[in-house]
Amino acid sequence: MRYTLSEPRHPSSDRFVLSKGHAAPVLYAAWAQAGLFPREDLLNLRKIDSDLEGHPTPRLNFIDVGTGSLGQGLSVACGMAYTGKYWDKASYRVYCMLGDGESAEGSVWEAMAWGSHYNLDNLVAIFDVNRLGQSEPTALQHEMDTYRKRAEAFGWNTYVVDGHDVEALCKVLHEASSVKGKPSCIIAKTYKGKGIPGVEDEENFHGKPMGDRSDGAIKAIQGLIAGENNVGPQPMTDDAPKINLTNIKMTQPPSYSLGDKVATRAAYGTGLAKLGQANDRVVAFDADVKNSTFSEKLKKAKPEQFVECFIAEQNMVGVGIGAATRDRAVVFCSTFACFLSRAYDQIRMAAISQSNVNLSGSHVGVSIGEDGPSQMALEDLAMFRAIPGAVVFYPSDAVSCERACELAANTKGICYIRTSRPATPVIYSNDEPFQVGKAKVVRKSDNDQVTIVAAAVTLLEATIAADELAKAGINVRIVDLFTIKPLDVDTLQASAKATGGRVLTVEDHYPEGGIGEAVSAGLSEFPNITVKKLAVREVPRSGPSAALLEMFGISASCITKAVQEML
Amino acid sequence: MRYTLSEPRHPSSDRFVLSKGHAAPVLYAAWAQAGLFPREDLLNLRKIDSDLEGHPTPRLNFIDVGTGSLGQGLSVACGMAYTGKYWDKASYRVYCMLGDGESAEGSVWEAMAWGSHYNLDNLVAIFDVNRLGQSEPTALQHEMDTYRKRAEAFGWNTYVVDGHDVEALCKVLHEASSVKGKPSCIIAKTYKGKGIPGVEDEENFHGKPMGDRSDGAIKAIQGLIAGENNVGPQPMTDDAPKINLTNIKMTQPPSYSLGDKVATRAAYGTGLAKLGQANDRVVAFDADVKNSTFSEKLKKAKPEQFVECFIAEQNMVGVGIGAATRDRAVVFCSTFACFLSRAYDQIRMAAISQSNVNLSGSHVGVSIGEDGPSQMALEDLAMFRAIPGAVVFYPSDAVSCERACELAANTKGICYIRTSRPATPVIYSNDEPFQVGKAKVVRKSDNDQVTIVAAAVTLLEATIAADELAKAGINVRIVDLFTIKPLDVDTLQASAKATGGRVLTVEDHYPEGGIGEAVSAGLSEFPNITVKKLAVREVPRSGPSAALLEMFGISASCITKAVQEML
Repeated sequence: MRYTLSEPRHPSSDRFVLSKGHAAPVLYAAWAQAGLFPREDLLNLRKIDSDLEGHPTPRLNFIDVGTGSLGQGLSVACGMAYTGKYWDKASYRVYCMLGDGESAEGSVWEAMAWGSHYNLDNLVAIFDVNRLGQSEPTALQHEMDTYRKRAEAFGWNTYVVDGHDVEALCKVLHEASSVKGKPSCIIAKTYKGKGIPGVEDEENFHGKPMGDRSDGAIKAIQGLIAGENNVGPQPMTDDAPKINLTNIKMTQPPSYSLGDKVATRAAYGTGLAKLGQANDRVVAFDADVKNSTFSEKLKKAKPEQFVECFIAEQNMVGVGIGAATRDRAVVFCSTFACFLSRAYDQIRMAAISQSNVNLSGSHVGVSIGEDGPSQMALEDLAMFRAIPGAVVFYPSDAVSCERACELAANTKGICYIRTSRPATPVIYSNDEPFQVGKAKVVRKSDNDQVTIVAAAVTLLEATIAADELAKAGINVRIVDLFTIKPLDVDTLQASAKATGGRVLTVEDHYPEGGIGEAVSAGLSEFPNITVKKLAVREVPRSGPSAALLEMFGISASCITKAVQEML
Repeated sequence: MRYTLSEPRHPSSDRFVLSKGHAAPVLYAAWAQAGLFPREDLLNLRKIDSDLEGHPTPRLNFIDVGTGSLGQGLSVACGMAYTGKYWDKASYRVYCMLGDGESAEGSVWEAMAWGSHYNLDNLVAIFDVNRLGQSEPTALQHEMDTYRKRAEAFGWNTYVVDGHDVEALCKVLHEASSVKGKPSCIIAKTYKGKGIPGVEDEENFHGKPMGDRSDGAIKAIQGLIAGENNVGPQPMTDDAPKINLTNIKMTQPPSYSLGDKVATRAAYGTGLAKLGQANDRVVAFDADVKNSTFSEKLKKAKPEQFVECFIAEQNMVGVGIGAATRDRAVVFCSTFACFLSRAYDQIRMAAISQSNVNLSGSHVGVSIGEDGPSQMALEDLAMFRAIPGAVVFYPSDAVSCERACELAANTKGICYIRTSRPATPVIYSNDEPFQVGKAKVVRKSDNDQVTIVAAAVTLLEATIAADELAKAGINVRIVDLFTIKPLDVDTLQASAKATGGRVLTVEDHYPEGGIGEAVSAGLSEFPNITVKKLAVREVPRSGPSAALLEMFGISASCITKAVQEML
């Protein structure tokens, strides 16, 4: 591999993803041997004050992404390779090592299909086929020909080799570097515990200390070491372009009139396109719903900054994480919000990977209408709020949605933008400023009796309810959180205090993990505040949007009734 | 297909899973044509008072599982076929129709690998290769040979046919029925909108009304109808055995001594094995971690009731859902809890499918220790609590864990059992009764000043803290929720009231969606109660279990400090 030891994550150096993250000790040893850190440090493996963790994380300066949840590395590698080939147009190559056990993960085959579709000839996948899983042999054991057929059927230039034959490995790695138009796959037949007496090719040693077999194991391994010849890095060519991902501003501010009816998903597309026009490293991936999420607006404006990922959400998120590594791109991935649940493990790992990937989910809640519950995201806030450090945007109109995109592009960590299907009125001026963690009080008077916390479709319902209640002499305050996480506890507390401690939340989401629980938890240490919650409390069904809001208890009339009950 | 019209979901009838759920109108029309309901009902499609929803759900008596999140149906069909072949030993066959777009989903290839590994020759998958996705052509368009190679490489008996040639379809369906030892795959080349002028094979018609093309479309379709010959169902053979899944009791009660140190994951295995010995329809699936989740205890006790799913969690859950349909089995699926995030979309759909599948996740939280954050479940409570109707068990000791298994086996809907890696003391007598939704007050006095809500490892820490605090004259009450959902609000409220309104939650989970938010939300309508929350607030790292509890703020000393601050 080609890299500079002083900067292992240099933009122009080769990439290596250890998808089988449990093999971390070997990777650490290789870097120590290459001279990155003292060999003695290896003895700190898995200690609480060492970054040599049980599985690799980017706390180490030679690791791009956390691995250890199996089957995710190849998608990440695909994202890196796509970036190298099409955006950086640089000479770096990407290597990914997978286990045979993890090749049962469907995400691996999503990546296999995607990598060949985009002709990623700068990518090499190495399958370590050691026959043994954790608890029993793998389904395919040493059926090398089956692996070959699968890899070839998925469009990869494929080699089957003896994984213990270093020369054979070097040969195919070299051959792979001259293959054009397709990625290469090396299927390496290996034996787990090779050379260690009583261990080689035997079950029940996965992740276990060698115990009294240690001496024999060390002796066997030492016997394989042919002197102290360091196989050092090859020099890299510094040909990845210098780019700037900071302070990205939309080419134009939002341009709406108050009251215009615009779906936030449409505004997402508009904001994305304006960011893409401002910086050619703002890129988007979508899972064959770009005409629903409106990410197609970026494709239309800047075709080279949009990449179709077809119906494979896990791979889409993995590719996005890969493209975002080493600050090579500001990445937005979009699909229906409910289908991001397909990639929840990838999103979980993205936090461990310290990724800056941005995700947008459209078609949230019962308000989507007739398509029915399978297409309705009602748990996405719970999902994303539980990601450490994530920013969860839930914009209530087109202006705030465009600003959410702009903030996401410039915010470190994982950002999620929740967008809605129905058109809702524009409620903010085009020059309204927005900040992460700052709510807006969108309706207030001097004698408000209840604070209503709502968003998007339910904010509109709350406004209708407020008008209705005002006729009966009851004034309410309405808060638009803008970000559900971080939560603007100060604004909530002040509003609650001003309204007799009475707070009502209304959300197009299940009760758990959404706005109601966020607000309840945020205010739970303040006495004399009560929080009542309206949310979707059962599996919904197909029907018109308005009828569903009513049936599942989050319509204007439900809000009116709840406020009356609180007084 | 073979079925009885009076009971479409008869245990002995053939199964059909429409994985491409968006084609629901055709399926509804076919059943109407077969005589199940009046044709006029079809005009109620997608209306709020009709069960003919936008995508199929089991609200209809001829649907086994909800579909509409693509790529999930084949796993479900695999579970049905496994059940038919190995447990029911019945003649029914299972058919699954997939779209070509959804074949990009990795879960499809997990199911393809699994179905051939278990020689499911009673299973037929039909791929409708119509070339067009929602937003653009699929990656493979009409590359029929690539589909064939992939299906064959994954071990399926494969046919490529003209999908508009009904005779050709009948022929291969008939041939498939005599193939032994492998499942069959029919790759059908079709044209979307076939025969409709200006629509056939054209983009931009996915999910859109025909508008002024309607007349032409209707005429074209009518032209294809060759008379009113009803292709009625074939008679089925009623050879699925009568079974009883009700009132399943463990063969023996828990058998521990108070203070015994037992990991709840081990108790899960013990409970599962006792249930499996009691009823041979209690079955388990695991994703190559059976020696960690301890589901291997069932395998050892009743080998035929355990099925290995290898490292493919999406398929494992799908297969489990399939096996549980039509009340043919009481299913438990297990893996590390963090890897259930891989199957969150399947779990979401399981609720829509009205499934009774039970899931168990082991190795939760930072208490697992050195393996590091990729292996720690810290968002699983958030995930599962957001599933409508789910029961979320978080047993604190071995006795309650065995009872959680027993309750799960007898509880309708989705049950989740959260188990821990470290051994913790047995705190309940073997005859202690447990109920869903009933918490236990495990420590109390007449002058408790704070209620501590904790579970498993943090319950142990809370007990240590309580002893420490007692030395300083501060008594605390400790509540073990047993089920985090449903939440025992009555016990919590009574305890809070008895302790000056002061509640402290401590959990080995991120703050969002877990115990702290559940308790905050459950008590949010009661004034004068404050809830303080201890939880893991950032991505953790590798280290010894006790050191991590301390570092991430959920140890006994952290609890002691928090209590002192509250007073």
